[in-house]
Amino acid sequence: MPTTDITAALLIIGDEILSGRTKDKNIGTLADNLTALGIRLLEVRIIADDEAAIVTAVNALRARFTYVFTTGGIGPTHDDITAESVAKAFGVSIDIDPRAVALMEPEYQRRGLELTPARLRMARIPKGAALIQNSVSIAPGFIMENVIVMAGVPSIMAAMFNDVAPTLTQGAQLFSKTLTLARAEAEIAPYFSAHQDKYPDVIMGSYPSFHGGKYKTELVLRAVDQDLLQKVADELAALLTEKGLL
Amino acid sequence: MPTTDITAALLIIGDEILSGRTKDKNIGTLADNLTALGIRLLEVRIIADDEAAIVTAVNALRARFTYVFTTGGIGPTHDDITAESVAKAFGVSIDIDPRAVALMEPEYQRRGLELTPARLRMARIPKGAALIQNSVSIAPGFIMENVIVMAGVPSIMAAMFNDVAPTLTQGAQLFSKTLTLARAEAEIAPYFSAHQDKYPDVIMGSYPSFHGGKYKTELVLRAVDQDLLQKVADELAALLTEKGLL
Repeated sequence: MPTTDITAALLIIGDEILSGRTKDKNIGTLADNLTALGIRLLEVRIIADDEAAIVTAVNALRARFTYVFTTGGIGPTHDDITAESVAKAFGVSIDIDPRAVALMEPEYQRRGLELTPARLRMARIPKGAALIQNSVSIAPGFIMENVIVMAGVPSIMAAMFNDVAPTLTQGAQLFSKTLTLARAEAEIAPYFSAHQDKYPDVIMGSYPSFHGGKYKTELVLRAVDQDLLQKVADELAALLTEKGLL
Repeated sequence: MPTTDITAALLIIGDEILSGRTKDKNIGTLADNLTALGIRLLEVRIIADDEAAIVTAVNALRARFTYVFTTGGIGPTHDDITAESVAKAFGVSIDIDPRAVALMEPEYQRRGLELTPARLRMARIPKGAALIQNSVSIAPGFIMENVIVMAGVPSIMAAMFNDVAPTLTQGAQLFSKTLTLARAEAEIAPYFSAHQDKYPDVIMGSYPSFHGGKYKTELVLRAVDQDLLQKVADELAALLTEKGLL
C-alpha cells in the first residue's frame, strides 16, 4: 500500500466513553486533522482509567507508531491518573512542574482563584516532558518523547492539538476522490475489485449506507500521486457509466 | 473495583473511520447496550482493513475478554476482509455457507436480484461459526466462539446486536447516580477524592465540561449495590451543599 510513513495511534482514556455515558467527539476531529497533515492514523484504543491498562497501552503503541496521542485523565480529580501512568510507562519521576505553575499562576490570580492542591495536581508533569499550551483552561498538556498527552474535553483537546500541530513531522498527503452511486455495493463489487487489481497503487474502499429502503454506495479512491488518482477515478467513472451503474 | 465479571471488547474494522471520512456511531450504541446488560466494555480498538492487524487484534482481545464484538468489513467488496481474517485468527477454513445462502436466496429472489459471486462473498462464514440474523439487509453476521462479527453500517449493526443480545450472559448491573454542579472540577476535587477514599466500593468519576465560559462538572457514582449507592450519593450531596458548592 503506497502511503506516508508517518503514522499515529490515538489512545482515549476514560471510563465514561466505555460506559456510554459520554459519546466520543475526539476521534473524528483528530482523524481529520492528522489526515490533513499526511499523518496516517492506524489505530485507536479506548481504555478505562486504570493504571495497568494505560501503562500497557502506552508502551505497546509508542513502540509501533511515529506518534501516540492520548486524550483524557489529566484533570484535578482522583480518577485523573494519565500523567502518573505515562511517567510510569517511561520509568521517570513525576512532580509539580514550575513551568506549569508559572503558566497557571497569573491566570488563576487574574480570576481570583487559589492554586489549591487539587489545581496543582494539573501541574504534575513527568520529568523530561515538554509542555503543551492550553489556550482554553491554561493547565497544560505535555509531550514525552513521541507521546502527546492532551485533555479529553473536546474544546481543550482541539486547543492543545493546535499548539502541537506545527511541531509534527508531516507525511506525504493522501489525496482522495469519491464516486457516489445509488446502488447496492454488491452490484458494483466485481468492477470495483477488478479496478483495484489493475491499479494497486491507489487505495480503494467501498462504503455502503442504507436509508429509508434506499441503497447508497460511496467508492473512495486515495493516492499520494494526484495525477494517477485523477486518471484512475475517471476511468472507473467511465466504466461504471458504461455498465449503467453511475 | 467492585464490578461485574462479564467483560467485552469492541473491535472496529475500517480505514474510513481512521481517515476521518466516516464518523463512528457504533461505539456509543454498543457501550449503552452492553452497560444495560451488565456487561462491562473495557476496551475499544479501531484498526485498518488489514489482515495482519485484524488477526493480531482478534487473538489479543478474545483471550482477555468474555466477548469480543467486531464491526465492519463483511460486505461484498475486495476491501471486506473481516470474515477471512477471523477464520485465520481461529485457524479454521472459510467457505460459502449453505445456511447463509438459504437465508439470502429467497430474499434476493423476492427483490429480483441475482446471487452473484460478489453477493455470495457475504455468505462466506468460517467453519464452526453460528449465524447472526440481519433483519435489515439479510446477509448474516456470525459468532465464532466468543467473537461476534457484525456489519459496520449502524442500522445493520443494531439489528445484528438485537439478534445476539438475548444469547449473551448478563452481568451484575452497575447502577449510577449523577450530581451536576456549575463549578470547576478543581473546587470539588478534595471533597470528592476524600469521598472516594471513604467508599471504595462505589466507583466515582468526575466529568468536566466548559461551554461559553461556564464550567460544569458532573460527578457520577456507580455501584452494583443500589442501597449503598443511594446512601453515598445523598451523603456527597449533603457535604457539597454544606460547602456551598451544590
